[in-house]
Amino acid sequence: MHLLGIDLGGTKLALCLFTGDGDVAWEKTIALNGRQGAEVGALITSETSNILQHQQQLGVAVHSIGICVPGIVDHRNNTIWAPNIAGWDAYPLLQEIQMAAGSIPVVIDSDRACYIMGEVWKGCAQECTDAIFMAVGTGIGAGILVNGEVMRGAHDISGAIGWMSLQRPYAKKFEQCGCFESRASGSGMVRLAHELLLDRPGYTGILRQKEPDQLTTAHIFDAYAQNDPLAKEVIDDCVELWGMAVANLVSLFDPEKIILGGGVFGPATSLIPAIGAEAAKWAQPVSIRKVKLEPSALGARAGLFGAGLMALKNIKRG
Amino acid sequence: MHLLGIDLGGTKLALCLFTGDGDVAWEKTIALNGRQGAEVGALITSETSNILQHQQQLGVAVHSIGICVPGIVDHRNNTIWAPNIAGWDAYPLLQEIQMAAGSIPVVIDSDRACYIMGEVWKGCAQECTDAIFMAVGTGIGAGILVNGEVMRGAHDISGAIGWMSLQRPYAKKFEQCGCFESRASGSGMVRLAHELLLDRPGYTGILRQKEPDQLTTAHIFDAYAQNDPLAKEVIDDCVELWGMAVANLVSLFDPEKIILGGGVFGPATSLIPAIGAEAAKWAQPVSIRKVKLEPSALGARAGLFGAGLMALKNIKRG
Repeated sequence: MHLLGIDLGGTKLALCLFTGDGDVAWEKTIALNGRQGAEVGALITSETSNILQHQQQLGVAVHSIGICVPGIVDHRNNTIWAPNIAGWDAYPLLQEIQMAAGSIPVVIDSDRACYIMGEVWKGCAQECTDAIFMAVGTGIGAGILVNGEVMRGAHDISGAIGWMSLQRPYAKKFEQCGCFESRASGSGMVRLAHELLLDRPGYTGILRQKEPDQLTTAHIFDAYAQNDPLAKEVIDDCVELWGMAVANLVSLFDPEKIILGGGVFGPATSLIPAIGAEAAKWAQPVSIRKVKLEPSALGARAGLFGAGLMALKNIKRG
Repeated sequence: MHLLGIDLGGTKLALCLFTGDGDVAWEKTIALNGRQGAEVGALITSETSNILQHQQQLGVAVHSIGICVPGIVDHRNNTIWAPNIAGWDAYPLLQEIQMAAGSIPVVIDSDRACYIMGEVWKGCAQECTDAIFMAVGTGIGAGILVNGEVMRGAHDISGAIGWMSLQRPYAKKFEQCGCFESRASGSGMVRLAHELLLDRPGYTGILRQKEPDQLTTAHIFDAYAQNDPLAKEVIDDCVELWGMAVANLVSLFDPEKIILGGGVFGPATSLIPAIGAEAAKWAQPVSIRKVKLEPSALGARAGLFGAGLMALKNIKRG
């Protein structure tokens, strides 16, 4: 019995065949190469068909398919909203893939739900019933496990922690993606660096050497490692916000673990002790002493493993 | 079949006999009159015994007992921590009451859990599976319903929303009870009024007439109703913080309803539209359009009704 896990990102598609125990039997990654809208759907469908046709050669028997998408799944209408894939506003992915999959069950879930489920299956939340995956990348979101189940909310959009309000007064720049995300996501870090470059005409350090539109979080982390003062200002600001956000999750949910992942953790993993120290100032004092703060054990593969576990649970449910 | 619901507050004890449908058959309230520690436990025990002995005269048959306490229940050790009742640090209330109740099952829960369950039973959350009761009184806490069940957290202390971080930088005054509670609870409102009275030597309005140590939230709301500028400053500050807190609950939990209760709502109920408008600036835009913001339907009796429903559920569970 095998499970096909599929992880759709903004730039690539990963496919993986898992055993029922979560061991990897076969794996493949494909660049999206600028595909948009229905082309992305067609790619997933053709890759799925291809795998299902070649099961014997691959030595597998696929019993269930799980797909992780970078957006929100409307479980009532079975459509996907994915802001980073042009044309995916209410995209009927389930219908398309189910056509290719025939009688094999297909389940689709949001990346944030898949991240925490991946960690539950094969990462650092294996023993947990209450844990949170805080994903910081281009955007910010959270997969939240409450009492052993992914928390959904009343309209399937819970865990939108990028919208957390952490500093007042309200500013226009929070409008697009929320206060926390606008300041402390990968994009927010770059935005703050730009603001500081404008504010500090006397600064002649490493980040000044880059063309402003070429500046990335990788440059900021590199400059930080070389004690660049402007990079330090950006990172210190983010550590404070990440710590406040962790504190709020701890005070509200009282979880066993908070797992830090997404593209920024990665390079920000070494900052976790500083983030924990900041969180300890703000959070409910008993909960913060009991919670564990850890980097993702699966990194970029958390969503893929989560898609695998979603597929497995969908068999048991069905 | 009747249920005995008991609501212990910081200054009084309420007892109520409910039918299985949640109709009130009999009710009584007793002032604590300065009782402390074991005296409070003894009062609850003697009142419970008294009711159980006089069931026939009262025309009831008690099948289950539920108790709402102003603190946190350690469900592993069955002890209570209640900061406003002297000596209740790890108080063995369940053991004491169970002795008096004999074979009748007894369940104890925190006020925040009882508030939301009261609204589920007989208040404005009757159709909800995902709803939050935000209680603003002397302190601030939340009872959170996720997928039809009260969210507990890993260590029984979830919903500590008074510790929410909403403004930086961190200040020493947040240490005792958290950023949000220190600014926007009843005590926080009075504290801010004191700070402003010191800061505004030229102010000669209504709140200046009170002895500073006599100032209460009632005075602040009265002065606000008379357009007092200092009271307006206090209330406007709280509306911003209440709105930010509501926004964070909406973005994280995506609930159907947020119910505003506790002693401050009450007089702040007329501010709910302004709080909603503030929340709309900050929150995840889809969730905030779908959520309903309402005052508690049960007011001061939410905990009592919640204790009744806890008693009912405890029979079904047992």
